[in-house]
Amino acid sequence: MSVVVVGSVAYDGVETPHGKVERMLGGACTYIALASSYFAKTKIVAVVGDDFAKEDEDVLSKAGIDLEGLERVPGKTFFWAGVYSDDMNDRTTLRTDLNVFADFQPKLPESYRQSPYLILGNIQPALQRSVREQMNGLRLAGGDTMNYWIADYRAELLETIRAWDFLLINDAEARMLSGENNLKRAAAKIFEMGPHTLVIKRGEYGAILFHRDKHFMVPGYLLEKVFDPTGAGDCFAGGFIGYLAEKGFDLKAGHVDNKELSRAVIYGSVLGSFCCEKFGVDRFRTLTRAEIDGRFNEFRACTEF
Amino acid sequence: MSVVVVGSVAYDGVETPHGKVERMLGGACTYIALASSYFAKTKIVAVVGDDFAKEDEDVLSKAGIDLEGLERVPGKTFFWAGVYSDDMNDRTTLRTDLNVFADFQPKLPESYRQSPYLILGNIQPALQRSVREQMNGLRLAGGDTMNYWIADYRAELLETIRAWDFLLINDAEARMLSGENNLKRAAAKIFEMGPHTLVIKRGEYGAILFHRDKHFMVPGYLLEKVFDPTGAGDCFAGGFIGYLAEKGFDLKAGHVDNKELSRAVIYGSVLGSFCCEKFGVDRFRTLTRAEIDGRFNEFRACTEF
Repeated sequence: MSVVVVGSVAYDGVETPHGKVERMLGGACTYIALASSYFAKTKIVAVVGDDFAKEDEDVLSKAGIDLEGLERVPGKTFFWAGVYSDDMNDRTTLRTDLNVFADFQPKLPESYRQSPYLILGNIQPALQRSVREQMNGLRLAGGDTMNYWIADYRAELLETIRAWDFLLINDAEARMLSGENNLKRAAAKIFEMGPHTLVIKRGEYGAILFHRDKHFMVPGYLLEKVFDPTGAGDCFAGGFIGYLAEKGFDLKAGHVDNKELSRAVIYGSVLGSFCCEKFGVDRFRTLTRAEIDGRFNEFRACTEF
Repeated sequence: MSVVVVGSVAYDGVETPHGKVERMLGGACTYIALASSYFAKTKIVAVVGDDFAKEDEDVLSKAGIDLEGLERVPGKTFFWAGVYSDDMNDRTTLRTDLNVFADFQPKLPESYRQSPYLILGNIQPALQRSVREQMNGLRLAGGDTMNYWIADYRAELLETIRAWDFLLINDAEARMLSGENNLKRAAAKIFEMGPHTLVIKRGEYGAILFHRDKHFMVPGYLLEKVFDPTGAGDCFAGGFIGYLAEKGFDLKAGHVDNKELSRAVIYGSVLGSFCCEKFGVDRFRTLTRAEIDGRFNEFRACTEF
């Protein structure tokens, strides 16, 4: 079943201890969609400028991603540049040029509106809400947000996530949103805001899934070398929603009981870990479903006891 | 089968966001032995001063711990005081009075020397080595160390751990000892130093076990409230060695294949998590084996997929 992804398609400038790339394809929507495309038909809603290169569009179309909702307008594509610390646990933003993204008003093609799965990348909450409201017959909807919206657009964000099934954020964001330092208590508070499922991404330390009164934890995959963590969180999100769409996950049909949500977290972790192995989206040029399933099995082998 | 534990029996002064205790029973040997005592006959080697209270000795003897190797000498018992940061991820040492510990020369009672399991708490590497050399017929020996010994007693430490089966340290110590930032590569370097098994403790993020070319990862138990993390790493060590002793773990008999080392890491995590629930050793006054096994099962329930 199909997945609709909304967010930024962008150009990124990234510097890590392993190298520097001045300008490459990036953006939350790009990473989420590439990861999701291994599992399910994936349709994107985003905006790019007239500088958006054919070869970058090809990366998306070759992955089978539906680009009907990719709007092209005069001007420049969103550009972000950042540099990572030596241990890659911190990054500093050097530049954020919204460009054509400043006036983004997501418009869903008619052919997208019946998709059962929706994932909203980190953009202004009001835009996320407007997309949610254009969909019919959703089975599962949710997304990401960040400290900026939590701090300065709190009311708008709360109004938005009230209609979400799941929220996918990192631990600092979960603490900030809930006002609770302890993650278990943070999850309980966030459930009162609407979502029944919370996925907390902890970077190299893995992730925790909270669903109602249960939780599931997975440690981070041990990579020998992290080239570039940019997009890893979004790839996690893409693997998570993609797997659930592939399985036709349906809470009402009781699919939660057979651990599909937990497996979706593993697939999210798998996609996030592959993303870090090369710069930008490079790993996705060669990554196969067999490699993905191989790493899923590795996760099982090194967490079973 | 029995376990010999060597290290400090001390008094601690601890302040956390949840309270302050001026003076209470503590020390690595104390915590390791209390945790281990749930699984196997546990024998300690340590020194205390003439101020060591009967009620504190009773905590150990009531747990069935063999105190024949607990030396009593004139003077004061080792005292340590520290204060934790608000999120309890950092602590500042306020006072370290070695007292009678300054001249500690561990002497093993004759009845200890045939124990198959030995765990060496964090003390000067030369002392750890002298204990190791007093033992006969060891099946499994290893221990803990810290940044101070790694930096200033490196040669002595390397000479000591060369004869160890396992090393149990935190991630910062593993990086420091190996000179490798990446934990997988750090483990490979440490295996060249002697041990075939490395357990990396990551505090609230869990632990990783490396054994030869395999690894096992476990996330940290999600506590609703951490009262006092003092001793949690030592309780991890005690649960780890205690469980292996209970099972009569024997590498030569191929026990590694049936995941006993991984289960020992889970029992370590279980004991470490209980330790944090109250101040000092207080949780051990009521903790039962049934509670321990219950939490072991909880670990399985929230990591299986």
